[in-house]
Amino acid sequence: MKKGLLLTPGPSKVPVELCEVLGKPIIHHRTPQFQQILKELTEGLKKIINTSSEVYLLASSGTGAMEAAVANLASPGDKVITVEYGKFGERWASLAKAYKLNAVTLKIEWGRTITPEEVKAALVAHPDAKVIFLTQCETSTSATPDMAGIGAVVKDTPTALVVDAVSALGTEPMKMDEWGVDVVCSGSHKGLMLPPGVGIVAASAKAIAMIESSTNIRFYFDLRKSRKALADTDTPFTPAINIIIALNEAVKMLLAEGLDKKQEYYLKMAKAVWAGVEAIGLSVYAQPKYRSRGLTAILIPEALNPKKLVKTMRDVHGITMAGGQGDLDGKIVRIAHMGAVDEYDILTGLSCLEKVLKEAGHKFELGASLAAAQKVLNS
Amino acid sequence: MKKGLLLTPGPSKVPVELCEVLGKPIIHHRTPQFQQILKELTEGLKKIINTSSEVYLLASSGTGAMEAAVANLASPGDKVITVEYGKFGERWASLAKAYKLNAVTLKIEWGRTITPEEVKAALVAHPDAKVIFLTQCETSTSATPDMAGIGAVVKDTPTALVVDAVSALGTEPMKMDEWGVDVVCSGSHKGLMLPPGVGIVAASAKAIAMIESSTNIRFYFDLRKSRKALADTDTPFTPAINIIIALNEAVKMLLAEGLDKKQEYYLKMAKAVWAGVEAIGLSVYAQPKYRSRGLTAILIPEALNPKKLVKTMRDVHGITMAGGQGDLDGKIVRIAHMGAVDEYDILTGLSCLEKVLKEAGHKFELGASLAAAQKVLNS
Repeated sequence: MKKGLLLTPGPSKVPVELCEVLGKPIIHHRTPQFQQILKELTEGLKKIINTSSEVYLLASSGTGAMEAAVANLASPGDKVITVEYGKFGERWASLAKAYKLNAVTLKIEWGRTITPEEVKAALVAHPDAKVIFLTQCETSTSATPDMAGIGAVVKDTPTALVVDAVSALGTEPMKMDEWGVDVVCSGSHKGLMLPPGVGIVAASAKAIAMIESSTNIRFYFDLRKSRKALADTDTPFTPAINIIIALNEAVKMLLAEGLDKKQEYYLKMAKAVWAGVEAIGLSVYAQPKYRSRGLTAILIPEALNPKKLVKTMRDVHGITMAGGQGDLDGKIVRIAHMGAVDEYDILTGLSCLEKVLKEAGHKFELGASLAAAQKVLNS
Repeated sequence: MKKGLLLTPGPSKVPVELCEVLGKPIIHHRTPQFQQILKELTEGLKKIINTSSEVYLLASSGTGAMEAAVANLASPGDKVITVEYGKFGERWASLAKAYKLNAVTLKIEWGRTITPEEVKAALVAHPDAKVIFLTQCETSTSATPDMAGIGAVVKDTPTALVVDAVSALGTEPMKMDEWGVDVVCSGSHKGLMLPPGVGIVAASAKAIAMIESSTNIRFYFDLRKSRKALADTDTPFTPAINIIIALNEAVKMLLAEGLDKKQEYYLKMAKAVWAGVEAIGLSVYAQPKYRSRGLTAILIPEALNPKKLVKTMRDVHGITMAGGQGDLDGKIVRIAHMGAVDEYDILTGLSCLEKVLKEAGHKFELGASLAAAQKVLNS
């Protein structure tokens, strides 16, 4: 009997109540019953994103939401800025290249993110950039920027601010209207604690004007079609019905619990993991002021073979964390504390990590990470 | 207690065993466990499509699979032929327009489809057409063409044959390699009896060469990325994990039952519906030699208000069929006999249709459609 605990930063653990919803008999999407759900979900997501503008739902993973932002906000040859501080930042540059945009790519060292000052300098250097694309929670490094500070810098410029919040939404605060974010892209399978299959795009009035005037090729991800359908409480193409129905319940659960309170809890779990990791002689990969609430990348000496640790935890003990990607392959272990993950899951994860670290020959006092985390969790 | 029976031609009824699979705790997609499922599913789909070539899975609805075919097989300015005999045929023309292709559109009257002879004439008139796009089961009219005959006509030309089999796959025969079909597009939510969320694309060697050489803008639906990922038993972006896991089970169920036998059964149910409908003084919309196995569009006098009949069956009795779309809005009622629908569901549907027809003032002998259908079902 293996544990069967998912501690990966997407897909994340699905609460058992929502598993039940996913397994309910399907209904047709062109019915008053489904329309009511679409309406409730759109309103709920607006509360999570803190916007009074429009929210569109796509049958896609998070990358589809990112592609929708690129395809609808810029046209071939347009100057844009993409910012990279990990694997998902690189995706913005790949998308800009595929769409034949004139992209200026800012490469920031991994482990931190871009600062508001650096964003300001980029906008001064490129005042003609139509869009700046960046990442709220860089899942590959677990780093997150000062979104409020960045929003304040971009807000009164002609440049639109597009944020990949695929792993951030629900877990990190997002005050879209107040901060001046123009597009928020997200998905169902990270902080919103469901399987992948629904892409989410929120657009400001500034973004909507760009959506309406872009000359890019677009069809499935054409947000003009999404806007038209939204006005009729519909989606342009067949939606991912059962995930949308469960997503409505997920959003209600998060809002009923209170999002501010929930995000404080994610931060407390994050701090517990940081303390736990340090108590057994390891370190957190992201620099202190850039650490996300949603996951922690733990730097592990290569001699201990982090890839093998992840494999053993998963295959022998049934506890799944993630390894590193790209330049961090074989160097880190990532543990999620987003969505439905709770403090007991975190302690379970640390306990299993201690077990495989011990077997790998790492020297530390057994239980030290648990004790350190427990102190933070109950402070 | 309403019946809760879904008889719409997509989404279609999901078998209870698959509802349970959809509600199982999620697993991570970059694991040997999920890779094994992907491998089994790909092999299973090849058997359903009857191809030894490649099958790609997208996190999208059926339209995403259609867009992938357009984006990957043609480049801006290329001449293509799109064929319309219903609402979904029109989608091929819309996609070709969005992608700036030079499309010749053949408009066939609704209720039938294109014949192999008409396809041949189109290819003679347009030998430089790179692709001909058509629909195997036109869900808006319930008509289906002679795919084997069309394949034979296109096979030895330079033109590629792309087929929208979104509602046909599983229900209508598809012998991709034998017939010379170059691309089959489908989805999870019709004949494959699951919720929407997975797009399916199968490509022949001829299509693969076109995929590799297209100059179109594409990223999320870039089949070059799908091909690369497939070689590693992976998908380029996060897949719709829980639907894929259930789809593997759905495909196994269909293959275990025997696809030929199953398709004979769909045809028997279709014939039962045709007989039932005629026994109560109504008629089948599609012309006799073009009728599909998967659904029947029933022509209903406008005085009986078909839209209201559909609404009453759904809202009062809990039995959901579909009305008409486009030019057929307010003129037909569509009943599905695809995927998991069985003969008892069909009798239930006819019984409810008789009930609301009676209330609407239609004159017929109560039970006549049931008796006629029952005779065919047990012949």
